[in-house]
Amino acid sequence: MTQQNAPQPTQPRITVWHEYRHEHENKAVSDLYPHGMHAALADGLREHGFSNVRTATLDEPEHGLTDDVLASTDVLLWWGHKAHGDVSDAVAEKVVQRVWDGMGLIVLHSGHFSKPFKRLMGTSCDLKWREANDRERLWVVDPGHPIAQGVGEYIEIEQEEMYGEHFDIPAPDELVFLSWFSGGEVFRSGCTYRRGSGKIFYFRPGHETYPTYYHAGVRQVIANAARWAAPTASAPRAFGNRQPLEALPTGERR
Amino acid sequence: MTQQNAPQPTQPRITVWHEYRHEHENKAVSDLYPHGMHAALADGLREHGFSNVRTATLDEPEHGLTDDVLASTDVLLWWGHKAHGDVSDAVAEKVVQRVWDGMGLIVLHSGHFSKPFKRLMGTSCDLKWREANDRERLWVVDPGHPIAQGVGEYIEIEQEEMYGEHFDIPAPDELVFLSWFSGGEVFRSGCTYRRGSGKIFYFRPGHETYPTYYHAGVRQVIANAARWAAPTASAPRAFGNRQPLEALPTGERR
Amino acid sequence: MTQQNAPQPTQPRITVWHEYRHEHENKAVSDLYPHGMHAALADGLREHGFSNVRTATLDEPEHGLTDDVLASTDVLLWWGHKAHGDVSDAVAEKVVQRVWDGMGLIVLHSGHFSKPFKRLMGTSCDLKWREANDRERLWVVDPGHPIAQGVGEYIEIEQEEMYGEHFDIPAPDELVFLSWFSGGEVFRSGCTYRRGSGKIFYFRPGHETYPTYYHAGVRQVIANAARWAAPTASAPRAFGNRQPLEALPTGERR
Amino acid sequence: MTQQNAPQPTQPRITVWHEYRHEHENKAVSDLYPHGMHAALADGLREHGFSNVRTATLDEPEHGLTDDVLASTDVLLWWGHKAHGDVSDAVAEKVVQRVWDGMGLIVLHSGHFSKPFKRLMGTSCDLKWREANDRERLWVVDPGHPIAQGVGEYIEIEQEEMYGEHFDIPAPDELVFLSWFSGGEVFRSGCTYRRGSGKIFYFRPGHETYPTYYHAGVRQVIANAARWAAPTASAPRAFGNRQPLEALPTGERR
Repeated sequence: MTQQNAPQPTQPRITVWHEYRHEHENKAVSDLYPHGMHAALADGLREHGFSNVRTATLDEPEHGLTDDVLASTDVLLWWGHKAHGDVSDAVAEKVVQRVWDGMGLIVLHSGHFSKPFKRLMGTSCDLKWREANDRERLWVVDPGHPIAQGVGEYIEIEQEEMYGEHFDIPAPDELVFLSWFSGGEVFRSGCTYRRGSGKIFYFRPGHETYPTYYHAGVRQVIANAARWAAPTASAPRAFGNRQPLEALPTGERR
Repeated sequence: MTQQNAPQPTQPRITVWHEYRHEHENKAVSDLYPHGMHAALADGLREHGFSNVRTATLDEPEHGLTDDVLASTDVLLWWGHKAHGDVSDAVAEKVVQRVWDGMGLIVLHSGHFSKPFKRLMGTSCDLKWREANDRERLWVVDPGHPIAQGVGEYIEIEQEEMYGEHFDIPAPDELVFLSWFSGGEVFRSGCTYRRGSGKIFYFRPGHETYPTYYHAGVRQVIANAARWAAPTASAPRAFGNRQPLEALPTGERR
Repeated sequence: MTQQNAPQPTQPRITVWHEYRHEHENKAVSDLYPHGMHAALADGLREHGFSNVRTATLDEPEHGLTDDVLASTDVLLWWGHKAHGDVSDAVAEKVVQRVWDGMGLIVLHSGHFSKPFKRLMGTSCDLKWREANDRERLWVVDPGHPIAQGVGEYIEIEQEEMYGEHFDIPAPDELVFLSWFSGGEVFRSGCTYRRGSGKIFYFRPGHETYPTYYHAGVRQVIANAARWAAPTASAPRAFGNRQPLEALPTGERR
Repeated sequence: MTQQNAPQPTQPRITVWHEYRHEHENKAVSDLYPHGMHAALADGLREHGFSNVRTATLDEPEHGLTDDVLASTDVLLWWGHKAHGDVSDAVAEKVVQRVWDGMGLIVLHSGHFSKPFKRLMGTSCDLKWREANDRERLWVVDPGHPIAQGVGEYIEIEQEEMYGEHFDIPAPDELVFLSWFSGGEVFRSGCTYRRGSGKIFYFRPGHETYPTYYHAGVRQVIANAARWAAPTASAPRAFGNRQPLEALPTGERR
């Protein structure tokens, strides 16, 4: 088999980025996630066979996303909620540029309002919401999509925050999941985008006061998405001034 | 006929925004466009029956795009090239927000690198280019699209700057024109996007050293695009905290 | 104003096609729709200002869709359910070809399994369903879309048949409505497509045993869709053998 | 690693289907492809590491596409030109249904007019054409796409038949290549679609009188496409009558 057809590396280098503030301020959250939501997310990925998983958090220097870390990250997960404004513009911009260069980005739940996601979407990313223990059922609308494999016809989450339409995003390149909420709303809860050479997946569930990131179906989807978002070998992205490839018409022709 | 089905206003309020710097520094440009490229663009629109057309330029206060002007603009045309950096971030952001609220935006030629366009796309918007008097032929690939009406199977421009792929944009919602260049390149030269309630059209031709904005086919397309991009009545965009519409499951159920 | 920029005719010629069998076999249906569902649909359009509306039904000669009728139809509505197989292949194919030539097509409810829709989609168009008096709430997910104007944030229908995902259609060009059902399902209930020069809108509601086509919001959407789907002037669709537009490389070059 | 995250089988079972008529009637073709174009295509795939490649041709019983062959095919390549009408409707329909069930389909060149492709597209699939030894240059417009890997910024083919826009297809889900032709035309020459659970790639080059299927870049793309189109594990496609998942509103509510 030639090198060109080698399957993508089976072990993408994954970095789970987490705001990691709620756990320090809300006992309900730290009871659910004693080592932080990032630890639960990383465990879920390891459970699905990913061995190259590390974490980074907001209050580390450079938010844990140094140039070295970003350069060696194939897929970045992003969870933030109450401190989007504390993420430096410089780091947010580096994340965006790494996506353009091919890094996968999985944006979770309240990350819809994060700087990198809003910057990549070019829209407000606003939505409706309610914290009232709604039941959520995520229906697979694209059963042939690799992100949907292994979860059956739907994922049911007993209690979650509600997010409702209208969700102000560009029309997704692919719509994988639609959520039903017991309070009467719907939401486009699994959306893919490509920007530059990078793949982006937005996945709705994961409010901090629920044990969502221990849910088997949710873990399955995030693992599928990490595999899907990993960079593939690609054609060069080349820009700038160029000589013609064909003889141009002579001036006389005009 | 009920109000809801009234056709859109036949006279959208159009503002042609122009950098207006080349004309002051390059005699070749001011010879071609003695009153500025914005004047030629506005004339082209008036020729096609638009009577509510005004212009605004970079070196006016607030770049001519005050809150009043933006609030009373249905469709904004944007041409910039050498001074993208001189556009204030504040004005660029106001333009973006007006697009989200429904204002149409027609981005011309080198405007691919303008602040509003890059902000709305979320990509680098980079491309290949050459100033060598290439012949350009813009083929209609979507003949049913209203922006393509009246131009036949293609538009031919005797001499233009070349823009070549890869053009680093999100996949367009609709691809209306593809350009062929005599030097051997191709380009997605007519692309539509929707962001929020606003419609965006990127149209490639219009280098400042060519009489492109006097070309009948080019003027036809820009007029078509202005009509297409004008806001239509729409459903409300509503966000934020919401009460449930259905009785939620009782706590006991859990 | 040049002719090219004239607004589309304010009075598209609309034909409402109806299977019209349930009304003859089920008193519950004929009680709801004493003149047939087609009459109620036509009334709804007239109520919204369309004055050029006629109907055609399955059991007329050529199903009421003669060459003359099709040639003089700008927008065709299609409702069928139990007798899809009784529609002749020849008539179905003529409908498809008229869509390619620019006729708008609005496919209602159980028309998802009609010959013209399946032929235009290239998929099975299958789905889940239940007749159990579910409540349906159609959320607007694309508030800037002209088909959504005038209906608020959602349309609520007290009782309807349920249609659930997975709906086996190509990813829609635009997704305008998503349905929530009280029994726990969701559905992509307002989808646009373009095929050839024609515009297609699939709209879910309208089971024959409910008064859905008297519902103000449903009538508003169908009227919006009729306006949206009406043909616009367009570029020519031209195919076949062609002479080169540029001098071809000489044989010596090879 | 759990089974769900296992990479797709590295050896998809590929069937190259070929009309195989030109070789028997035109010495120029049989000189170029002494064992048939299908043999050259199969060789190209084997060169890229695919070991499970077989061929089937029109004049075999059931066109070589028996139920057993189709059931054991992960990716089907299709080349036809002068005998589309000789393909039985029954076999064409079986191909379509296998695509819906997940089989990948790669449609080559004049296969744009084949029964399975037209059936899956729902459009006429017509185009412009010329046999005049045009030079073709296929530009990568989506460098992050796996089908584009390994081919640089473009593929150049010294002599080919010209296909020109307008190409009457649904807007592709992804546009990977655009062709430039020396005679002045352009063409969307690498297009992906998904129908049901199956992936479809249309790839333009390959007129029978040119050695196109020996071209290294063309072989690379076809190999990339075979890998991309191979089925992945997916969620179940389930349809039909369903019981509610939630307690329905009681009749009193009405």
